[in-house]
Amino acid sequence: MMAFDTIVKGGIIVTAADRYAADIGIKDGRITALAAELSGAGELIDASGLLVLPGGIDSHVHLSQPSSDASVMADDFESGTRSAAAGGTTTVLAFALQKKGQSLREAVAEYHAQADGKCHVDVSFHLIISDPTPQVLGQELPALIEAGYSSFKVFMTYEDLVLNDRQLLEVFAVAGTHGATVMVHAEGYDAIRFLSEKLEREGHVAPYYHALSRPEIVEREATHRAISHAEITGIPIVIVHVSGREALEQIRWARARGLKVTAETCPQYITLTADDLRDLNMDFEGAKYVCSPPPRDAESQAAIWQGLVDGTLELFSSDHCPFFFQDEDGRGKDTPKARTSFRWVPNGIPGVETRLPILFSEGVSKGRISPEKFVALTATNHARTYGLYPRKGTIAVGSDADLVLWDPHRKETIRQENLHHGSDYTPWEGFEVTGWPIATMLRGLMVMENGQVLNRPGSGRYLMRPPLRPIARQAIQQSRKDPN
Amino acid sequence: MMAFDTIVKGGIIVTAADRYAADIGIKDGRITALAAELSGAGELIDASGLLVLPGGIDSHVHLSQPSSDASVMADDFESGTRSAAAGGTTTVLAFALQKKGQSLREAVAEYHAQADGKCHVDVSFHLIISDPTPQVLGQELPALIEAGYSSFKVFMTYEDLVLNDRQLLEVFAVAGTHGATVMVHAEGYDAIRFLSEKLEREGHVAPYYHALSRPEIVEREATHRAISHAEITGIPIVIVHVSGREALEQIRWARARGLKVTAETCPQYITLTADDLRDLNMDFEGAKYVCSPPPRDAESQAAIWQGLVDGTLELFSSDHCPFFFQDEDGRGKDTPKARTSFRWVPNGIPGVETRLPILFSEGVSKGRISPEKFVALTATNHARTYGLYPRKGTIAVGSDADLVLWDPHRKETIRQENLHHGSDYTPWEGFEVTGWPIATMLRGLMVMENGQVLNRPGSGRYLMRPPLRPIARQAIQQSRKDPN
Amino acid sequence: MMAFDTIVKGGIIVTAADRYAADIGIKDGRITALAAELSGAGELIDASGLLVLPGGIDSHVHLSQPSSDASVMADDFESGTRSAAAGGTTTVLAFALQKKGQSLREAVAEYHAQADGKCHVDVSFHLIISDPTPQVLGQELPALIEAGYSSFKVFMTYEDLVLNDRQLLEVFAVAGTHGATVMVHAEGYDAIRFLSEKLEREGHVAPYYHALSRPEIVEREATHRAISHAEITGIPIVIVHVSGREALEQIRWARARGLKVTAETCPQYITLTADDLRDLNMDFEGAKYVCSPPPRDAESQAAIWQGLVDGTLELFSSDHCPFFFQDEDGRGKDTPKARTSFRWVPNGIPGVETRLPILFSEGVSKGRISPEKFVALTATNHARTYGLYPRKGTIAVGSDADLVLWDPHRKETIRQENLHHGSDYTPWEGFEVTGWPIATMLRGLMVMENGQVLNRPGSGRYLMRPPLRPIARQAIQQSRKDPN
Amino acid sequence: MMAFDTIVKGGIIVTAADRYAADIGIKDGRITALAAELSGAGELIDASGLLVLPGGIDSHVHLSQPSSDASVMADDFESGTRSAAAGGTTTVLAFALQKKGQSLREAVAEYHAQADGKCHVDVSFHLIISDPTPQVLGQELPALIEAGYSSFKVFMTYEDLVLNDRQLLEVFAVAGTHGATVMVHAEGYDAIRFLSEKLEREGHVAPYYHALSRPEIVEREATHRAISHAEITGIPIVIVHVSGREALEQIRWARARGLKVTAETCPQYITLTADDLRDLNMDFEGAKYVCSPPPRDAESQAAIWQGLVDGTLELFSSDHCPFFFQDEDGRGKDTPKARTSFRWVPNGIPGVETRLPILFSEGVSKGRISPEKFVALTATNHARTYGLYPRKGTIAVGSDADLVLWDPHRKETIRQENLHHGSDYTPWEGFEVTGWPIATMLRGLMVMENGQVLNRPGSGRYLMRPPLRPIARQAIQQSRKDPN
Repeated sequence: MMAFDTIVKGGIIVTAADRYAADIGIKDGRITALAAELSGAGELIDASGLLVLPGGIDSHVHLSQPSSDASVMADDFESGTRSAAAGGTTTVLAFALQKKGQSLREAVAEYHAQADGKCHVDVSFHLIISDPTPQVLGQELPALIEAGYSSFKVFMTYEDLVLNDRQLLEVFAVAGTHGATVMVHAEGYDAIRFLSEKLEREGHVAPYYHALSRPEIVEREATHRAISHAEITGIPIVIVHVSGREALEQIRWARARGLKVTAETCPQYITLTADDLRDLNMDFEGAKYVCSPPPRDAESQAAIWQGLVDGTLELFSSDHCPFFFQDEDGRGKDTPKARTSFRWVPNGIPGVETRLPILFSEGVSKGRISPEKFVALTATNHARTYGLYPRKGTIAVGSDADLVLWDPHRKETIRQENLHHGSDYTPWEGFEVTGWPIATMLRGLMVMENGQVLNRPGSGRYLMRPPLRPIARQAIQQSRKDPN
Repeated sequence: MMAFDTIVKGGIIVTAADRYAADIGIKDGRITALAAELSGAGELIDASGLLVLPGGIDSHVHLSQPSSDASVMADDFESGTRSAAAGGTTTVLAFALQKKGQSLREAVAEYHAQADGKCHVDVSFHLIISDPTPQVLGQELPALIEAGYSSFKVFMTYEDLVLNDRQLLEVFAVAGTHGATVMVHAEGYDAIRFLSEKLEREGHVAPYYHALSRPEIVEREATHRAISHAEITGIPIVIVHVSGREALEQIRWARARGLKVTAETCPQYITLTADDLRDLNMDFEGAKYVCSPPPRDAESQAAIWQGLVDGTLELFSSDHCPFFFQDEDGRGKDTPKARTSFRWVPNGIPGVETRLPILFSEGVSKGRISPEKFVALTATNHARTYGLYPRKGTIAVGSDADLVLWDPHRKETIRQENLHHGSDYTPWEGFEVTGWPIATMLRGLMVMENGQVLNRPGSGRYLMRPPLRPIARQAIQQSRKDPN
Repeated sequence: MMAFDTIVKGGIIVTAADRYAADIGIKDGRITALAAELSGAGELIDASGLLVLPGGIDSHVHLSQPSSDASVMADDFESGTRSAAAGGTTTVLAFALQKKGQSLREAVAEYHAQADGKCHVDVSFHLIISDPTPQVLGQELPALIEAGYSSFKVFMTYEDLVLNDRQLLEVFAVAGTHGATVMVHAEGYDAIRFLSEKLEREGHVAPYYHALSRPEIVEREATHRAISHAEITGIPIVIVHVSGREALEQIRWARARGLKVTAETCPQYITLTADDLRDLNMDFEGAKYVCSPPPRDAESQAAIWQGLVDGTLELFSSDHCPFFFQDEDGRGKDTPKARTSFRWVPNGIPGVETRLPILFSEGVSKGRISPEKFVALTATNHARTYGLYPRKGTIAVGSDADLVLWDPHRKETIRQENLHHGSDYTPWEGFEVTGWPIATMLRGLMVMENGQVLNRPGSGRYLMRPPLRPIARQAIQQSRKDPN
Repeated sequence: MMAFDTIVKGGIIVTAADRYAADIGIKDGRITALAAELSGAGELIDASGLLVLPGGIDSHVHLSQPSSDASVMADDFESGTRSAAAGGTTTVLAFALQKKGQSLREAVAEYHAQADGKCHVDVSFHLIISDPTPQVLGQELPALIEAGYSSFKVFMTYEDLVLNDRQLLEVFAVAGTHGATVMVHAEGYDAIRFLSEKLEREGHVAPYYHALSRPEIVEREATHRAISHAEITGIPIVIVHVSGREALEQIRWARARGLKVTAETCPQYITLTADDLRDLNMDFEGAKYVCSPPPRDAESQAAIWQGLVDGTLELFSSDHCPFFFQDEDGRGKDTPKARTSFRWVPNGIPGVETRLPILFSEGVSKGRISPEKFVALTATNHARTYGLYPRKGTIAVGSDADLVLWDPHRKETIRQENLHHGSDYTPWEGFEVTGWPIATMLRGLMVMENGQVLNRPGSGRYLMRPPLRPIARQAIQQSRKDPN
């Protein structure tokens, strides 16, 4: 009676809540049955001895973005999504960046032009609002939200992107009215500039000083500020790439007060420290680890783990932001200019492909988190936060058959030579992991098998994400001690 | 190919993580398939328009326990589990109470004698350790844990049950060594006695003063103490029936420090307040609401909701502890002696049958929590905490087919006359709810349908629960500032 | 042997630490002896039955400042210091405001021109930095600090005064290098503008909405931000006019981390609430209570008292900022323009004369604080914070003979008709107090006696205040979890 | 006109609030004048170049107490107060210990018999309540409080002294009713016993394990419990010898909630760590540092400093509890029995003589605290807390002329050979300090000069301390969220 295109047999299914042995029946790209035993005419895929996980969702990926300088991103949508597929990720949320003076619609069109027909996995865009003109706030943004572009990111730092507090509040208010989700890069621009110039005046220009130019205080202050703006406008927010215990403490404080703050962290904050920027300093190799916020110290790593375990941190993304280290055309991190100051080292590291193995190995294999928690952190919570659930992010009847077949026992060493991204290095060169993706299926089609990315670009589709119900305006009255 | 005994068709399945439309195929009491469409020879159950939830697990139920005085419990295992089935609960964790001087094995045998063959739903026992002799700690308890009695409860108050700190530490240490789970009733005995006698000396003897005799401070102090003992012995603990914000603050503090503290709350702490003991005072009706800890105030109710929403509180149980209000044989709450002082009012209220409707209505219907959270709080988390998962607590291939068919829109008014418990009253008389259980299935068999409990006693089985892996001893070194 | 110009006999001396009966011998304006019994040829002043307190120091007083609109301040240095003397205050720290584009030296000269020779009590200026040009930061400010102008105030709000974060950091750094003290008005400009415009769009323009346009969140966020900037630059700061529990919580958090944050509150935050802006609304009388931050609610009042008692709040100033309510020339609060929106109501209330009676009555007479604490809060701590100690702020051999003879039992009702300030109203009209200043002595000379201000303007001198030792730069490393 | 017995000339007077140059005139043992220049017929004492401080008050000193074993205290009232005088302390608050079964009056009489006529400085007794019978609580204690024995100490540990929670509450309630002050030794007896026996079973018996047998958790839990009992009974309490950051965090939490908790620390907690018990372990010399609570680690030392600086810790006492290290009669720390387990090492170290130099040197000379704060911590706050103010604890007209002439620049090395106590060692052997007492005056009489203790025993008097006003009963209602 039941007919399937494909049956995945013999694996252990893991969702955010459950773990059980079952066969998976797939029809027309969707999961149509989960059963103790399925049989039929379709293709049989043997998952014996493997975990079957929902395909990873990486909700923080930079592809094909222009960079402020001569440097360019090492990944376009084709190579970036190829790398994602190789690492077990089936949905990539990338950014469509509005340039100053540009209309948002134009920006969206530009990124569609770059992405459409070129992706190995499904993609969707977060808008980056860098120029919140009345036109953008009053017309373009509401229309785009309604059309399915329902999340956007704002920056509290970076010359070309930083919004001031008034602009943040205006953007937050639009998000509240129209049911969009706001992501915040929380580092304080002015403080970073102040410290950077001070370090430069003192002759501290090596990559390591990048970390000193944006200490945890700077991230904490911006986090507190973003939370306050969200409280004033009565909206939920997502604080992205939380790096250490100071910012985390603010988030925990806010959540205990009943504010809806979702927080994300990344592989760099559980595996790297600021010392990685220093130890290799003499060869400028520290620049390979320059990203923002910078990795912190062992104590902050412990705090981040604690946040993952206790539920304060709900999203684990890559913040994939790939640059070349050395590049013939001078478009990478190691340039004459960058050697004059850490300020000119492009901020960002590649990571879309290594995200899942790193968390599985450091988290599940080392006993810190359960496989279910791993699924929640890498797939389900992303789908729920950004409006993809239940189509994406879980293994359930009716969901897209985005699956990773995962060998929990396989030991691998991360090597640049085996990766599929565009960068010429990985910050995790030589990093040993236990647990590895064996195969990746996108809507029932195999796109990676045994390390080989199979499908041609174009198998990935663009995902529209309708807005959430407009949030009830709770704004000011939420803080119960305000005068009224 | 696939043959089922029963197919539940057309419902919306809800688990702790997911919600989706699927049919459920049941064979030999277990779920064997979840699919977009199932057909076959078995019985068809129409779940159209209904949610299909995992059967409720109530992990805090008192049945057939002797009481300190003339009063007796209003429910034995037959009536208590009948009431559970009526309310959508398919697993009841009741207590096997060791009397002072009694061997634990004997206590367990006594409760088996009372329960075996009489239950409408599945049951299992938590041991209550009231007399931790060397024999009990060194031999009986380890052997019982190994045999499948892997959880026990200790009391920090009540004349006949209270353990002193040394005894608590010894019991905790045994739990740590043998992988058992400890539940703590955290109220300070000495403080309660001190305050009770003071109130009595002042002539404050009405039921309302029960609440004043055990204020939040008393619960908070004991909670802090229990957490400290758990930290010293390096074990996880469960703090049961958290009633207000003071205790909750301690639990949140402990969890943010990385301690493994699981916390439970109950319907009384989100719906009743201490005023319920007072308003009806002149008729002694306040005694109907006497339970421990007592209900608090509106501010604490809000704190408890906040704890449920943010994940600090993971278990929602009834603390069903049923007494008669008025009883011809003088075994209830309203006795001449009880009218001389609140001290003689038996502590406890019935609630196993009304637990699910109250949380669904106040939580899901009023928009405070999602249906998935409801399932986690009422079933999945109990199964995980007490070693029943994945057999119980979820809807997944391989799990017992314990299901509730739930009408999320049905409005009901709670009335004693419609309930199945042994008590002659309900604290929620006249309470209006939206959302109601339509049918309850236990391992594939219908045990309640449209308010009618169908099966004969004896359909419920006893559930052995093997111990967890012995916890690595982290005890003292866990607190990183201790001298070493 | 000992010769005195004046002897104050028979009073009870109170200092920040002590209370004892002694006569006070004064010679050449200074205290030269404290003894059980003094006699001699000089003038005898009978203080029997009175407390003898150090003259009040009010370190937050606005006089003769230009206002952003047509409105003008109701007090110049003559009337303002006359009002101070009447209320038992012998030192007034007023502001010298730099206008945008103006040199700091010029601003200082302007205020000297207004103050010199006109004051009834001693005065000194805090600089207000509104235009921190390189010239100001690099040359004028260091020179002025060195010359004795060692404290300045910065604003995080107000169109003409607000500094951005970069400017705040630069100013803080100069303070750190040169040993000056920084006062911060902590309310977030952008959030206030955002909320004000929203309220106006909604038609909420009455004075009451002033309070809603700057809720506690706005003050809290700015307080956190100022603390973070101070942590980054390694300087101590003073947070002025703390109004409620949200900001207070940030300050307590910072101090427990070891940051040097001094905090001030004012009479309005222990006696008024936002409702004072509303109740009289129909007559526009709420405008009389418009000040920033606005008064909050009863819960915040309790928090402020708690902060005063536990030492978190160390300064009690008036924030005297006097405007006319109704004025023929249209220079006051009640103007046609102000009636179109709360935005145009001048921010500020008079209070230099009523500060001491209000705190004494609400604090000492009502048993919340000791007389010693009263002295610390109203005199000693100001002297220590702003470099006037030991010349001012205490009763000790060698200190200026600035004394208030205080009747702790005298009951008075505050009435505009009895006050000496320039405003045409007092926010405390009809407020009843117990405890009242009977006489005020400035450097041994009687300047007020029984409510009569005696001396001619010009008896008050300008006080130079040399800088503190440059603070050791602890900046970034202070936050122990930053990477280094 | 003014006649003095003695004039102290040319020093710098320091009080808890002030510092100024003045001569001090003394008549009949009291200070009668403070003046720029005094002259007259009396004795002249030259204090040029010296600080003149209020004589130290050590409110935590054990003298002539019986010990639980063969060991005896190394100081009686004669030697202990001689040592105090040598170290600049003019008032010693020692303990009168009630033995189990003994009447309190009898205990007081016994200690008077030991102290009267033998002391070099003034003394007063805290009662130690070890047997709170109805007779003691209902009659003896109220009568003794009324008679001037207005403070007492209770223990939460030690076999012969520990009170259970009910007893603590009863004692607290009596203190509240009669206006006495309660000191609490906060360590949990049961947890210590549990851990000690575990350590012994594991063969960990060296002195170092004393520290592991009572980790910070144990102190923190008892501190929380004592605070809760004080909250229930509505009394202020003193937590003595706070050793580390865990207990301190509880105290800060309680104070921020408005509870009146006064906290004390001691020299050992700012200068020693648990490692001092270990490093010298092989020679059993670690036993020299065995005291309770044990010294902690560097992080806790930093926390204690922070608590001293921010005002959370208001008392700095010695907890002088002197034992011999090696003693011919086997009464010391190093006995055959003590070598079998740390449990048999007497708990306590000598310190009454070195308290002031250690705090001055580590605090004032190293720039952590001001001289005024030093005076508050070592004298004034003790006088205020225990009812000796204004007679003791300050330099003011009318106060006892208890003075220390202090050379702030003198460098000394602490050596047992120079000390006056009865012990045969000091834990601070070789410790270098800057700042030293040059002379000590008791009520105008020189009792120590240049290290020589001059007066004969008997110059010290016993100080009666009348009770405080009975505290208003705020008990249960203080916790605002309790039901009422």
